[in-house]
Amino acid sequence: MTPLSRAAIIAVGSELLTPLRIDTNSLFITEQLNTLGADVVMKAVAGDDRVELAHVFRTALARADIIVLTGGLGPTDDDVTREVVAETLGRALSEDAALTERMRARFAARGYKGPMPESNRRQAMVPAGARVIENPNGSAPGLWIEERESLILLLPGPPRELKPMLTALLAGPLRQRAAGAPLLRRIVRMAGVIESQTDEALQPLYREWTGQTPPVSATILAALGQIELHLSTQAPSTDVAVAVLERAVRQACDVMGDAVFSSDGRSMEAVVGDMLVAHGYRIALAESCTGGLLASRLTDVAGSSRYVECGVVAYANAAKTDLLGVAPNLIVEHGAVSEPVAVAMAAGIRTRTSVDVGVGVTGIAGPGGGSAEKPVGTVAIAVVTPFDTRSRTFRFHGEREQVKFQASQAALDMVRRMLR
Amino acid sequence: MTPLSRAAIIAVGSELLTPLRIDTNSLFITEQLNTLGADVVMKAVAGDDRVELAHVFRTALARADIIVLTGGLGPTDDDVTREVVAETLGRALSEDAALTERMRARFAARGYKGPMPESNRRQAMVPAGARVIENPNGSAPGLWIEERESLILLLPGPPRELKPMLTALLAGPLRQRAAGAPLLRRIVRMAGVIESQTDEALQPLYREWTGQTPPVSATILAALGQIELHLSTQAPSTDVAVAVLERAVRQACDVMGDAVFSSDGRSMEAVVGDMLVAHGYRIALAESCTGGLLASRLTDVAGSSRYVECGVVAYANAAKTDLLGVAPNLIVEHGAVSEPVAVAMAAGIRTRTSVDVGVGVTGIAGPGGGSAEKPVGTVAIAVVTPFDTRSRTFRFHGEREQVKFQASQAALDMVRRMLR
Repeated sequence: MTPLSRAAIIAVGSELLTPLRIDTNSLFITEQLNTLGADVVMKAVAGDDRVELAHVFRTALARADIIVLTGGLGPTDDDVTREVVAETLGRALSEDAALTERMRARFAARGYKGPMPESNRRQAMVPAGARVIENPNGSAPGLWIEERESLILLLPGPPRELKPMLTALLAGPLRQRAAGAPLLRRIVRMAGVIESQTDEALQPLYREWTGQTPPVSATILAALGQIELHLSTQAPSTDVAVAVLERAVRQACDVMGDAVFSSDGRSMEAVVGDMLVAHGYRIALAESCTGGLLASRLTDVAGSSRYVECGVVAYANAAKTDLLGVAPNLIVEHGAVSEPVAVAMAAGIRTRTSVDVGVGVTGIAGPGGGSAEKPVGTVAIAVVTPFDTRSRTFRFHGEREQVKFQASQAALDMVRRMLR
Repeated sequence: MTPLSRAAIIAVGSELLTPLRIDTNSLFITEQLNTLGADVVMKAVAGDDRVELAHVFRTALARADIIVLTGGLGPTDDDVTREVVAETLGRALSEDAALTERMRARFAARGYKGPMPESNRRQAMVPAGARVIENPNGSAPGLWIEERESLILLLPGPPRELKPMLTALLAGPLRQRAAGAPLLRRIVRMAGVIESQTDEALQPLYREWTGQTPPVSATILAALGQIELHLSTQAPSTDVAVAVLERAVRQACDVMGDAVFSSDGRSMEAVVGDMLVAHGYRIALAESCTGGLLASRLTDVAGSSRYVECGVVAYANAAKTDLLGVAPNLIVEHGAVSEPVAVAMAAGIRTRTSVDVGVGVTGIAGPGGGSAEKPVGTVAIAVVTPFDTRSRTFRFHGEREQVKFQASQAALDMVRRMLR
């Protein structure tokens, strides 16, 4: 059996060619095939149309040695995947009587009234030479077809049917077709640095990683409020790949220092939460322009009631004074968006609720409200801990929701750096 | 000029063939091309690889009369879209000197130090006969290429560059290539009803819409906290399509009554915001399990400072008492998750901040904290207006973040129904 190294994924379904639905199955399939050492060289979406699907399938056949088709395996006339694949490969379709019997039994066991509709027998049609893949979570069985050096898999579209089937295949027959070099990934997440800085600082490591055996490939992705370093390697075994990536992660962490907030998949809010737990601290939030997003992100983490005491969204100036005790003359003197007001908000909520860490955020999320001196995106953030008070003014770019998110991320990052 | 009716979309970029990134540009592109009357017949993703991209592009050329390629237009060796398209079409690439000059001017205007890197000149290479599409938001210009009866568009990958460019093309030169039967869509959004109810209630309309000329096709999608009815029609003209859809929208609204919160694309938070403005009301939020999400959603809307006074996230019981004035014995007697406590929270914040509308939300977002009597997902919500007080207990399903979202949606929907 030939190892599989080049994969193509085809999602079938006219709904996936509208503005309303997107194929996300291919992300899971890619991750799984990568562990076999197979690279995905193309992905495509075809509608429920015999001619179009046949064209896309033929292109994939010419380019890949494993082709995974998802969807279009149902019992209706719209479900054309089985027929198109069989016809393109020149194989006859015939009913698998044993499969029909299993489908009838399943139908009866589910308590449906009356006999199974005859149309369901379409799902028992199998191309010559194909093997049936059982589907414990639905009526559409999968198909495994060997064609010369290539393997073609037909899997059902619903994720709750597809995922267990593919997982079982990977633990069983697909594992034997591994190219012998699993591709693994790790992500190093950073905040408070910009993409070009990061890229420059990591240049010597890129060279080292490219030159070593096995090489580590690195990609920097700038996401909102954070920079992600994606590391991947293809090694003779999973153990080697894990060790190689672990070393690269440690090297990147050494270079980037305290800009790195996570190398184990955790989000910023989870990292800050874990630090608060480790210190035995409780936190309270005083938010203006972030409008509750900071509190909402912290409370997205399960178990956050252990350390989130409360938050106040003081959108109006009166609320800043009444609920947080910010002196009105401070607002008059420095403006509502200023570090002194942010510090007063953080200190105010910290004192009023007797917590260890207080955070104050005040800014202009836009689109209105900016001035020449303080344009849209200007945000003052302050953090008060038992040992320290820090404040900083940021200038974020983007739409209202992007400014809100970046401000919440910068506030969390300030807390993280102060609790290190 | 031939009208365009069959579209193919190709996203270029190796990162789109990993488990980490997905092409979402194609959803926007599909929506826009549909308004021209063009159906998308295939979508594909190719990596930054000349051979693979050429194969996919040739397949698309054989199947479609408008092909949109996105991405791979940057200045580096990895950016191969221009070269592959030119080579496949047999057209020479040459530098557009005027374009280089405009790029240099843009580079200088942005305040970068030193001259533009020579590598950027790659972006000024234009295939013979192609027209340059200006990109006001980035350095990569787009390209418009006529090839026999087909039109090929090369657009940059970043959405904030791609979207304005495509929108401008649709208002201008692309509009003249419309197939004459534009496909238009409307979405009717509902809350407080379930999918099967909605489906049953709309059955007679489905039959009417299918039988009429031009027919209206309807799809129900259950999103978190809301049901969406997607209506589309393909009509001889945009005016006819608009009128046919408007009639269908009105029919659906008549049947579904006050469950419908939007038929013009607005979100629930925008709808509630507009109602608050119309009444001249200000609102304050007292949140427990939603953790600030309710305030954050309301303040996602531009201009919300006109009606959002403040919010209090009272996660701990002490905070409910201190900041909201909830009587401790009420919590002892009914439990923190109860309608009396929700009402006390709503009334407390309303009085303390002197606003018109107060909202209280208290519940168990999970995964911990549930009991037999009050399982995870139990949420009590209260709304107090100048004329009325209402409270209700919900039981939501799903993970922590899903419970939070559904609770915020139900709270907004209660406000909406009370302000109608």
